[in-house]
Amino acid sequence: MQQVRVGLIGTGYIGRCHAIAYAQAPVVFPLKGQLVREMLAEVTPELAARQAESLGFNRATGDWRELVADPAIDVVDICAPNFLHKEMALAAIAHGKHVYSEKPLALSTRDAAEMVEAARRAGVKTLVGFNYMKNPATQLARQIIARGEIGEVVHFYGTHNEDYMANPATPLDWHCRKDSAGLGALGDLGAHIINMAHYLVGSRVASVSGDMQTIIGERPDPRAPSRLLPVENEDQAHALLRFESGVMGQIETSRIACGRKMGLGYVITGTRGCISYTQERMAELKLYRHDDDQGRQGFKTLLLGPEHPDYAAFCISAGHGFGFNDQKTVEIRDLVDGIAAGSPLWPDFEEGWRVSRVLDAIALSAERRQWIHVEEIQ
Amino acid sequence: MQQVRVGLIGTGYIGRCHAIAYAQAPVVFPLKGQLVREMLAEVTPELAARQAESLGFNRATGDWRELVADPAIDVVDICAPNFLHKEMALAAIAHGKHVYSEKPLALSTRDAAEMVEAARRAGVKTLVGFNYMKNPATQLARQIIARGEIGEVVHFYGTHNEDYMANPATPLDWHCRKDSAGLGALGDLGAHIINMAHYLVGSRVASVSGDMQTIIGERPDPRAPSRLLPVENEDQAHALLRFESGVMGQIETSRIACGRKMGLGYVITGTRGCISYTQERMAELKLYRHDDDQGRQGFKTLLLGPEHPDYAAFCISAGHGFGFNDQKTVEIRDLVDGIAAGSPLWPDFEEGWRVSRVLDAIALSAERRQWIHVEEIQ
Amino acid sequence: MQQVRVGLIGTGYIGRCHAIAYAQAPVVFPLKGQLVREMLAEVTPELAARQAESLGFNRATGDWRELVADPAIDVVDICAPNFLHKEMALAAIAHGKHVYSEKPLALSTRDAAEMVEAARRAGVKTLVGFNYMKNPATQLARQIIARGEIGEVVHFYGTHNEDYMANPATPLDWHCRKDSAGLGALGDLGAHIINMAHYLVGSRVASVSGDMQTIIGERPDPRAPSRLLPVENEDQAHALLRFESGVMGQIETSRIACGRKMGLGYVITGTRGCISYTQERMAELKLYRHDDDQGRQGFKTLLLGPEHPDYAAFCISAGHGFGFNDQKTVEIRDLVDGIAAGSPLWPDFEEGWRVSRVLDAIALSAERRQWIHVEEIQ
Amino acid sequence: MQQVRVGLIGTGYIGRCHAIAYAQAPVVFPLKGQLVREMLAEVTPELAARQAESLGFNRATGDWRELVADPAIDVVDICAPNFLHKEMALAAIAHGKHVYSEKPLALSTRDAAEMVEAARRAGVKTLVGFNYMKNPATQLARQIIARGEIGEVVHFYGTHNEDYMANPATPLDWHCRKDSAGLGALGDLGAHIINMAHYLVGSRVASVSGDMQTIIGERPDPRAPSRLLPVENEDQAHALLRFESGVMGQIETSRIACGRKMGLGYVITGTRGCISYTQERMAELKLYRHDDDQGRQGFKTLLLGPEHPDYAAFCISAGHGFGFNDQKTVEIRDLVDGIAAGSPLWPDFEEGWRVSRVLDAIALSAERRQWIHVEEIQ
Repeated sequence: MQQVRVGLIGTGYIGRCHAIAYAQAPVVFPLKGQLVREMLAEVTPELAARQAESLGFNRATGDWRELVADPAIDVVDICAPNFLHKEMALAAIAHGKHVYSEKPLALSTRDAAEMVEAARRAGVKTLVGFNYMKNPATQLARQIIARGEIGEVVHFYGTHNEDYMANPATPLDWHCRKDSAGLGALGDLGAHIINMAHYLVGSRVASVSGDMQTIIGERPDPRAPSRLLPVENEDQAHALLRFESGVMGQIETSRIACGRKMGLGYVITGTRGCISYTQERMAELKLYRHDDDQGRQGFKTLLLGPEHPDYAAFCISAGHGFGFNDQKTVEIRDLVDGIAAGSPLWPDFEEGWRVSRVLDAIALSAERRQWIHVEEIQ
Repeated sequence: MQQVRVGLIGTGYIGRCHAIAYAQAPVVFPLKGQLVREMLAEVTPELAARQAESLGFNRATGDWRELVADPAIDVVDICAPNFLHKEMALAAIAHGKHVYSEKPLALSTRDAAEMVEAARRAGVKTLVGFNYMKNPATQLARQIIARGEIGEVVHFYGTHNEDYMANPATPLDWHCRKDSAGLGALGDLGAHIINMAHYLVGSRVASVSGDMQTIIGERPDPRAPSRLLPVENEDQAHALLRFESGVMGQIETSRIACGRKMGLGYVITGTRGCISYTQERMAELKLYRHDDDQGRQGFKTLLLGPEHPDYAAFCISAGHGFGFNDQKTVEIRDLVDGIAAGSPLWPDFEEGWRVSRVLDAIALSAERRQWIHVEEIQ
Repeated sequence: MQQVRVGLIGTGYIGRCHAIAYAQAPVVFPLKGQLVREMLAEVTPELAARQAESLGFNRATGDWRELVADPAIDVVDICAPNFLHKEMALAAIAHGKHVYSEKPLALSTRDAAEMVEAARRAGVKTLVGFNYMKNPATQLARQIIARGEIGEVVHFYGTHNEDYMANPATPLDWHCRKDSAGLGALGDLGAHIINMAHYLVGSRVASVSGDMQTIIGERPDPRAPSRLLPVENEDQAHALLRFESGVMGQIETSRIACGRKMGLGYVITGTRGCISYTQERMAELKLYRHDDDQGRQGFKTLLLGPEHPDYAAFCISAGHGFGFNDQKTVEIRDLVDGIAAGSPLWPDFEEGWRVSRVLDAIALSAERRQWIHVEEIQ
Repeated sequence: MQQVRVGLIGTGYIGRCHAIAYAQAPVVFPLKGQLVREMLAEVTPELAARQAESLGFNRATGDWRELVADPAIDVVDICAPNFLHKEMALAAIAHGKHVYSEKPLALSTRDAAEMVEAARRAGVKTLVGFNYMKNPATQLARQIIARGEIGEVVHFYGTHNEDYMANPATPLDWHCRKDSAGLGALGDLGAHIINMAHYLVGSRVASVSGDMQTIIGERPDPRAPSRLLPVENEDQAHALLRFESGVMGQIETSRIACGRKMGLGYVITGTRGCISYTQERMAELKLYRHDDDQGRQGFKTLLLGPEHPDYAAFCISAGHGFGFNDQKTVEIRDLVDGIAAGSPLWPDFEEGWRVSRVLDAIALSAERRQWIHVEEIQ
């Protein structure tokens, strides 16, 4: 069986999630390739060595350039901060590696386009870590829509709200600076919901009218808390959408949305039904079908079960739950199978670039106070 | 005790709701005036007589003009179809009557302005039937916001979605024609959510970017079901809002939103908390406060209880429920007390006109594909 | 149309609820008789007069004996404290009046039996105010069961928990004394759930194994708060049931169940489905059908709508809500129609007596620590 | 670092869950010992070899006796059917191994007692797989109770209902036979809820009054579906409990409870609050505190977050979800740490035996129709 040897860069918040999923994936799924946790890069050799041991990687390095060049690596997994994605991905591609990058793909649409082009020329596979769409509940939503169970989609409402920056005393970090993060809530959270919209509606966002605000204008300097530094990007944003299919949509994202801990959600209205979902109850989906008997209509709560996509690999009993790292495990199954079997991966860098275009269009629309065609964004 | 003698025009859907509330109000509340169900008008004398008997009114007439001119009437209550509101209200005002009209106030902002002006000149009191804001749960939401319990409001999301026209086989009725209804979902349902936004946010909508669609373009002619007639106004609409205070808002309305039977709802985000509500569970409000202890934060479900506004008059035990007609009963309490005590009523015709301006601004924005200042609408 | 002239005794908590329902009923329903709010009795003539005016009754008296003897009264409605039910009912029956009594029917099964017998001999109609079973959601549950939509019932779980006595500082009142209330939580709340069990399961409770406790043994004397008085009946109780049909059941009741404001609820399991309900969301019912398609099974939330029993009289749009007093209005419709049309009323005194037997059996079982056949209770 | 070498017997439903957890645990937690997936036993050498490869075990055997005797095994993990637990555990103990067994511990209390005694004499550690109590949400419930946040516990209501046998066409399997499973729903599901009761209430069940039924008396023979075989144990059971502390409790369990897919849940009432939980929403806990401000009381939905026990190891962001296998991962952390650090494990065989006694007491009580003291069961 072909090996798929992974080099992981970064073991912070999301890097740890990847590591848990790498450990779990081969036991959960009958993978098409042999997954090898080959090498791990961190900012110092010491940290890298410690993390390699605790996360189950064979080798470690304090220099990510060494990792991307290593001949025993098949795929480079980028879990470093946003501003490094581009440089790392281009270097990995230059060495002929497949690249698996966390979202957002890059700080700008232009950078993303460069990465797409480099990967295309090199003929390597790419995957972006939009893990929420890998959740079986959301795969089920897609299945229901694709089968026409709610008729034709006529409206999409999506949110990705969290409150991790709701407290004004939370110090400024890289998320709040343009040079390290690019956009604020839109880039960090909104990216997920645009990808979700593409996936679920089955059509791309064509034009947008957006608005956004920074609510907490200054935050403590993490190195000198009594000093305040300016927040450089938006705390909240929302937009009207039109999809290429003509469907109307609406999205909302915020990093200061008090009470929303994992407030990714959607309500998708069709001509004959409706789907409603919130990631805070990630193992259930609500489904309404207008064709049900009079007097017996209503939203039905579907609990994930063995009939639904990818759930049975974790547990064959219905309703037994599904966890955050489990959806990443599905993503890694896709990665390994795609590389081993030579089949396409999605969401790939091109999708990452498309999402970036929509986000930039929203930001531009908010500035110009008018609708923007996504195609205008280069 | 001063009498408040009511003349009710129209006993269809909402007229019956008024009649139930009139019957209930004097027993529920210690009213400041003596409510008298004096006269009722319907389209024929026979129907009027039958309805007066079953709804408990003293007299009946088949001619509303007789009612508005009757000297024994203090307030004219207009529950006729939208296109008649203006004519009836102006006639009532001309006879010096107070006017209580169902929403939307008129078919156009211009008409609404005329009604406001006539009432102002005549010095009569006016009230518009935005009954959802009278629900104790929503009054509680306002109280929580006004007391600063969720900090400063930073975002408003509101919906009024229903599915009463979701079935394409449902025949065309007056709601779907411009000359009888004006706007579609926006006028019928959106009006409530704009009024709600004004009430809860405590600031008026200043500008909007809207979008709208007619999804079911033709419907059966009710008189010849095999013939299809064009639907003349929108099935669904949504908009971004900016309030005068600078707060960002978003609304959504639809009459074909499968599964939403009474889908009026809101999520109001503040700097230190959040409120969430849906009219389908009209006796509960969800409240999140970010200052709660770490590890003990979460949305709390408040059931209406005697400490909350206007609930105790119906039942002094908490959580015992609240019904659709009960909120209209609160509205009628306001009407009677306002007239008897000479105190102001709200939402008055001016608010009806303001709501109309916002709705027209949304429709214009959808057409022009740009933000519209509400002040531009005359 | 035949008149149904009501004499109401008591205008406290539940008496006010009756009064609101009397005001509402003739407008909501096309009653088969003409409901007349004829006379009202309270503890003093002054209070009676005040209440008659505010509650819309024609006459008032400070002596309930005068009311039960009045020739212009057709039905006596007893909303006085429990310990008076028997004396008042027997007096009313002696004057040939129909009797409508609040629950629990009497302080003991023996007293209840006497009342049943007196009514039977006099040939008068009786009704007990088990209003929760009149709620359209619960009527819908019964309809679903009766039609076999969940197969054969195999298990009943019912609760009526509240927390009105949860605070130990709440003074002792008549609910806590044997001579004025008889049983504690069982009598006040448990009565509802036993009646509900009979209604929904469609079979009577045949035997019980119960347990009960007084948790707060002493409470402040309301007249001298620093003095503590003993609580004489149970704060909480629960029991296993066997119905005559062989079905297993379980109930739970408490007046100190923190957080349950109106915690009447049930879960009814059938061989092919399940129904779940809580009175705190009194306008919705959850329904599961095991025959639904694989992968599309789940509990469906049914909102009350015009297809459901008795809802349309209040509002013809689905999901618009239903209130506490509305279910009493349904009960009063039953009362008036039953008397005017000469048709049977239910739950009648016999059902009140049957419920009392079950409650006494639970109390006896708790004492003897063994199963008790309900028939043993006389 | 000390090695903890595991020998796993059985890779069916729950064995796979263990295997996923073994893969995940060392990456999720900083374990105190080095976990080694040393050997796996299945019913044939071929199956064992295949499973060892896919589940990541070093060695395989078709003979579990070889595994329990292997000198390179520190702990034997028994995931075989119930009727084999005793024999395997005694053999493992005879070889001085620690034993980690799935529930129920044995087919009878007597067998369980023998296992407890053997382990005690051998001085080996034991752990029973009551994984639901390892879920952070339930650990949080325990923490809240232990800190007195809901006052003194006064009532426990617990369920473990599922519907895996609801369909009468589901063939008879070992769960339905006395010689292979012992009890039915009580043994398979009820065991969890009794353990949960002990854990959460902090007191042991002292006496019970139970009832039970077999609803589907015959099921198809899996080898000849047209032939029906008798079901030998109960489909549903429920019981009243008294804890040693005097607290009243109630439990309910069923394997034919239509619609309950993972219907383990509890409502725990205290003198100053209440906790409510259902495993179908395993990442949230509802908490009510009676001391909250008047008008601001209500059940609060706590989403698991980094402040709660054991959640942060999986994800440091609140509300991001928790899965079925994750709670088993917590259990395995306890196993490895307990063995490596020499600290006590819980729930151990003694707890397994205590649970067995309660279950047998319920079954005996159902037969005798009277309360049974748990101590009577030997």
